[in-house]
Amino acid sequence: MASDPARKQPQQPARPEHSTLSGLELKEVYGPADVGEDGGSPGEYPFTRGVYPNMYRGRRWTMRQFAGFGNAGDTNERFKYLLAEGTSGLSTAFDMPTLMGYDADSPRALGEVGREGVAVSTVEDMEVLFDGIPLEEVTTSMTVNCTASILLAMYLVVAERRGCDWRKISGTIQNDMFKEFIAQKEWICPPEPSLRVVTDMVEFCTKEVPRWHPVSISGYHIREAGSTAVQELAFTLADGIGYVQAAVERGLDADEFGPRLSFFFNVHNDFLEEIAKIRAARRMWAKIMRERFGAKTDRACLLRTHAQTSGVSLTAQQPVNNVVRVTVQALAAVLAGVQSLHTNSLDETHSLPTEEAVTVALRTQQILAEETGVTGTVDPLGGSYALEALTDRMEAEAWEYIEKIDEMGGILRAIELGYPQQEIADAAYAFQQASDAGEYVTVGVNGYRSGEEGTSIDTLKIDTMIEERQSKALVTLKAGRDAESVVEGLDGIRRAARSGENLMPPIIEAVRRSCSVGEISDVFREVFGVYGDPAWV
Amino acid sequence: MASDPARKQPQQPARPEHSTLSGLELKEVYGPADVGEDGGSPGEYPFTRGVYPNMYRGRRWTMRQFAGFGNAGDTNERFKYLLAEGTSGLSTAFDMPTLMGYDADSPRALGEVGREGVAVSTVEDMEVLFDGIPLEEVTTSMTVNCTASILLAMYLVVAERRGCDWRKISGTIQNDMFKEFIAQKEWICPPEPSLRVVTDMVEFCTKEVPRWHPVSISGYHIREAGSTAVQELAFTLADGIGYVQAAVERGLDADEFGPRLSFFFNVHNDFLEEIAKIRAARRMWAKIMRERFGAKTDRACLLRTHAQTSGVSLTAQQPVNNVVRVTVQALAAVLAGVQSLHTNSLDETHSLPTEEAVTVALRTQQILAEETGVTGTVDPLGGSYALEALTDRMEAEAWEYIEKIDEMGGILRAIELGYPQQEIADAAYAFQQASDAGEYVTVGVNGYRSGEEGTSIDTLKIDTMIEERQSKALVTLKAGRDAESVVEGLDGIRRAARSGENLMPPIIEAVRRSCSVGEISDVFREVFGVYGDPAWV
Repeated sequence: MASDPARKQPQQPARPEHSTLSGLELKEVYGPADVGEDGGSPGEYPFTRGVYPNMYRGRRWTMRQFAGFGNAGDTNERFKYLLAEGTSGLSTAFDMPTLMGYDADSPRALGEVGREGVAVSTVEDMEVLFDGIPLEEVTTSMTVNCTASILLAMYLVVAERRGCDWRKISGTIQNDMFKEFIAQKEWICPPEPSLRVVTDMVEFCTKEVPRWHPVSISGYHIREAGSTAVQELAFTLADGIGYVQAAVERGLDADEFGPRLSFFFNVHNDFLEEIAKIRAARRMWAKIMRERFGAKTDRACLLRTHAQTSGVSLTAQQPVNNVVRVTVQALAAVLAGVQSLHTNSLDETHSLPTEEAVTVALRTQQILAEETGVTGTVDPLGGSYALEALTDRMEAEAWEYIEKIDEMGGILRAIELGYPQQEIADAAYAFQQASDAGEYVTVGVNGYRSGEEGTSIDTLKIDTMIEERQSKALVTLKAGRDAESVVEGLDGIRRAARSGENLMPPIIEAVRRSCSVGEISDVFREVFGVYGDPAWV
Repeated sequence: MASDPARKQPQQPARPEHSTLSGLELKEVYGPADVGEDGGSPGEYPFTRGVYPNMYRGRRWTMRQFAGFGNAGDTNERFKYLLAEGTSGLSTAFDMPTLMGYDADSPRALGEVGREGVAVSTVEDMEVLFDGIPLEEVTTSMTVNCTASILLAMYLVVAERRGCDWRKISGTIQNDMFKEFIAQKEWICPPEPSLRVVTDMVEFCTKEVPRWHPVSISGYHIREAGSTAVQELAFTLADGIGYVQAAVERGLDADEFGPRLSFFFNVHNDFLEEIAKIRAARRMWAKIMRERFGAKTDRACLLRTHAQTSGVSLTAQQPVNNVVRVTVQALAAVLAGVQSLHTNSLDETHSLPTEEAVTVALRTQQILAEETGVTGTVDPLGGSYALEALTDRMEAEAWEYIEKIDEMGGILRAIELGYPQQEIADAAYAFQQASDAGEYVTVGVNGYRSGEEGTSIDTLKIDTMIEERQSKALVTLKAGRDAESVVEGLDGIRRAARSGENLMPPIIEAVRRSCSVGEISDVFREVFGVYGDPAWV
C-alpha cells in the first residue's frame, strides 16, 4: 500500500517492544510452564480467583456511579435519576471547598462552589442531598478524605434525624489520607495527625457503625497520577498495611476491623495487566492480613474492591471513542471480580457528565451484566497461562516495593521521605517520553486523528448562580444558629484533638449543632497544623 | 430497596439458569480438571491457539469495513474515506438487484437500486467502484453469492484493463451458496448447479488467481438467522466439507486449493462462547483437512477467518449502547485470533452507516489494536479453564451435527432435506420464547428502557434519484453495445453451462463485452432452472 497516499496508518504494531502499558515485557506465547502458583478456588484463601465461591451468580457487582454537582438539591435529583435507571449504589462527589475544608461562603471557595462536585457545608445540606432516599436500604459511597470525619458525621446525623439505626446503614467513605500525600495531593494537616483521624474513624465505625467501611484504600488516584500498575498495586497495599498497623497499635483486633476495610482500584487500558493486578491484589492482601497481622478469619483477609475506569485514558478528541475504552476497562474489572464499579462517561474530559452520557456509562455495566454472559461462571479467565503468569509477576514486583517501604520504617515514613511520590513521578515522566516518541499510540490524539468530527458534544452547564445562592443561604443559616452552642461544639473537638480521645463523638455533636465543614476544619488546622509536601516544597 | 419506587431493576441475575447465550450450561467454577485436550502451540497443528506462531505481533488483523450504497461513485468515495482513516482492507456490499441477478433497469429492481449496497450492473460500474484504488496493493472482499462468478469476472476484467497481474491481486469473494440455502435464502438456481459454479470458481482461481479466496465459508448469516453458536460452527464446517469434497471430486488437490479457502464467522454477545467457537473451529477444520481429506501441508489445514460483530445483537433503542456491544464482540474476535474484522456501526439498525458512525466502528478496532495491549501476546486467554472447557464442549457438540449430516449423505443432501434449516428455525424459536419470558434481557429493549433519550440519531440518506439515474445510464450503455458481441458472449456461457466446462472463462469474456449481471443471470436461470426452498414451499 506504499503507493496509496490515503493510507497513513502503519500495518505493523507501533510499539517497538511487546510490553504491557506499565512496561512489563510480555512473552510471545505463554504456556503451562509459565504458570507458578495455582490460583486455588474462589472463596478460599488466598482468594486469587475471587472473594466469594459463587461471585456474580450470588450477587452482581454494585453499579455505583460517582455523581455530584451544584447544590444538594441538584445532586439529589441526579441520585434519584440514577436509581431509577438501575444503578445499585450511590457515590457522592463533593466540590473542592468541601473536600479542602472551606465553607461555601469562604473567600477560598470562590469560583469552586458546586463546580466539580456538590457543595455541602453543614448537616442541613446533607439532609437535602439524601432527601427521599432510604438510608437503610441504599449503600452510599462518599469520596472525601481530609474532611471525611466531618462528612461521615453529617451522614450519621441525617440518619439519626430520620430514625435510622446506625447499625443498619452501610456504605463507604474514602478517607484514605496516605494516597493523598502520595498522589492526589489534597490535604490539610500533616501525615501523622491525618492517620490518627483515620484510625479514630476505623475504631468508631467498628464499634458504632459496623456495616460502614471507614476507609477505602485507594490505588485509583495513584494510577491517575501516572504510576505503573505495579506501583498502584504496591503503594495501595502499603497504605493498607499502614492503616492496619495503626489500628492494631490502637489496640483494635484485626479480625474485627479487617472485614470493614475496602479497596478502590483503577482499571486502565491494558486488559490483561489490569485483571492480573486485581487478582494479585486479592492474593497479596490475604497474605498480609494472615501472615503479617495474624488475622484468623477469612473475612478479615478478603480484599473487597470498588473499581473505576481510568479517567486519564479518556480523550477530549472523538468523545464517542471513550465508550470503547470504558467498555474494555469495565469488562476487565468484571473479569477481575470487583465488588463495585463506576464507569466513566464519554464527556468527562469536557465537563461533568450529562444525564445522557452517564446513562450510556451505566448501560455499559448493564450490558456487561445482562448480555455478555461473563457473570455465568466465576473467574472466567482463571488458568489462562498469560494471565496467571502476569498475576505472579505483578505480585513479585509489588512485594519488592513493599519490602523497600518496610525497610524505610513503613508507609508514613516513606511518604515523609517522598519515596512513593518520586517513584510515581519517574514513572509518569518515562511514560510521557515513550508516548511523545510514539511508542504508545492514543487513538485520536497521536494517531488516527480526524477532522472536526465528533468533538462537538453537549456538555453539562452548572448554574453560575449556585455559588452566590449557596453562599447566601449559608450566611443566613450561620446567623440563625445559637452562637454559644456552636462554640461549645467546636471546643469539644478541640479538646479531643489535643487529648487523643476519639474525635468522632465530638465531631458528631458539633455537626448536630450545625457547625460547618470550614469551622471544624479550622480546628484541625489550629491543633494539628497545616502541611507542605516534602517532595515539592 | 423494596420501598424505593424508583428502583426497578432486579439485583439478582435475570437468567434462571447459568448458561451461555446458546444455552450451553456453565459450571459455577472451572478448574484444571475441566480441561481436556491441550491447546498445543499457536502455529502448530491443530492450531487451536492460532494459525500463526506470532499472530498479531507479526501482522495485525485486517480492519475491513463492509461498505456500499448508492452508485459506484458514492461507494468509491466511502472506500477512499475508509482507507484514509486507517482501514486496511476493502469490503463491498452490493445492492439487492445485483445480488439477485437483476440489472438496475429491471422492473424487479424497482425501489432497491443502491439502497442496501452499491448498484453494479456491468464492468463499467466496477471500474468506477475501484477508481484510483491500487488493486495489487489492497485486498478486496466482495459479499456476493448467486452472482459471485459475474462480479469476480468484472473485478478481474477491471484489473486486466489497468494492467494488473491476476496473480498479484488478492481478496475474497463470499460465494458460499450452501449457507444461502441454509440461512440467508438468497438464491437463483438449485443447490447442485450452484455448487458446480462454486467449484468452477475454486478451480479457476487456484490456477489463474492464486492469491484470491474463491469462497468464504460463512457462519455469519447462519447465526444471524437465529442459530446457536454450536450450529453456526457445525453447519459452517459442514459447508466447508461440502466444498472440499466437490473440489476433490473435480480432481483438485486439497493441498493446492485448501490454503485458498477462507471462513467468515459471526461474533455475538457471549464473550466466552464466541472465543471458544472460533478456537474450536480452527481445531476442527485442521482435523477435517488432515484426517478426512488427507491434506499433507499445514497451510491447507489452517482456518483463516474474517469475523463480523453481530448485527442482530444491536438495538434501535439507545443506539450508543451498540458501541458497547460492538466493543465486547470485537474484543472477543481479537482474543480469538481472527485474521480480519468488520465492526458494525451504532446506527445500523436505523440505516446504512453514516461516515461518523463508521468512523467510530473503525476506531473501535484501532483502540483495541493500539491501546488495550491484547496484541502483545498470542492467544492471551489460552489455558483459561472455562474457555478450554467450552472449546472442548463446542467441538464435541459440533462433531455430533457433522456426523448426522454425514449420515444423510453430506450437506447438499441435508439442505435438500431441509435439515439445517429446521434446526436453525427451532433454535431461533426457542431463543425467542426464552427472550419473551425475560430469561434473556436486552438492555433498552426488554429491560433498562429509557424515555426518548438517545433514539434520535442522524441517519444516512440515500439519494432517491440514484435509481432513475442508474437505470437511465444503464439503458444508454446497453444501447451503445455491439448487440452481436453481447449475444456471442452470452452464448459462450450457455454452451459452457450445458457442457460442464469451467464457466469462468466464458463469463469473463462476456463481461469484457459489457454483458450485464441480469443478462448473465438469465442464462443461469435458463440452463440451471430456478429454485424453491423445500422447507418452506
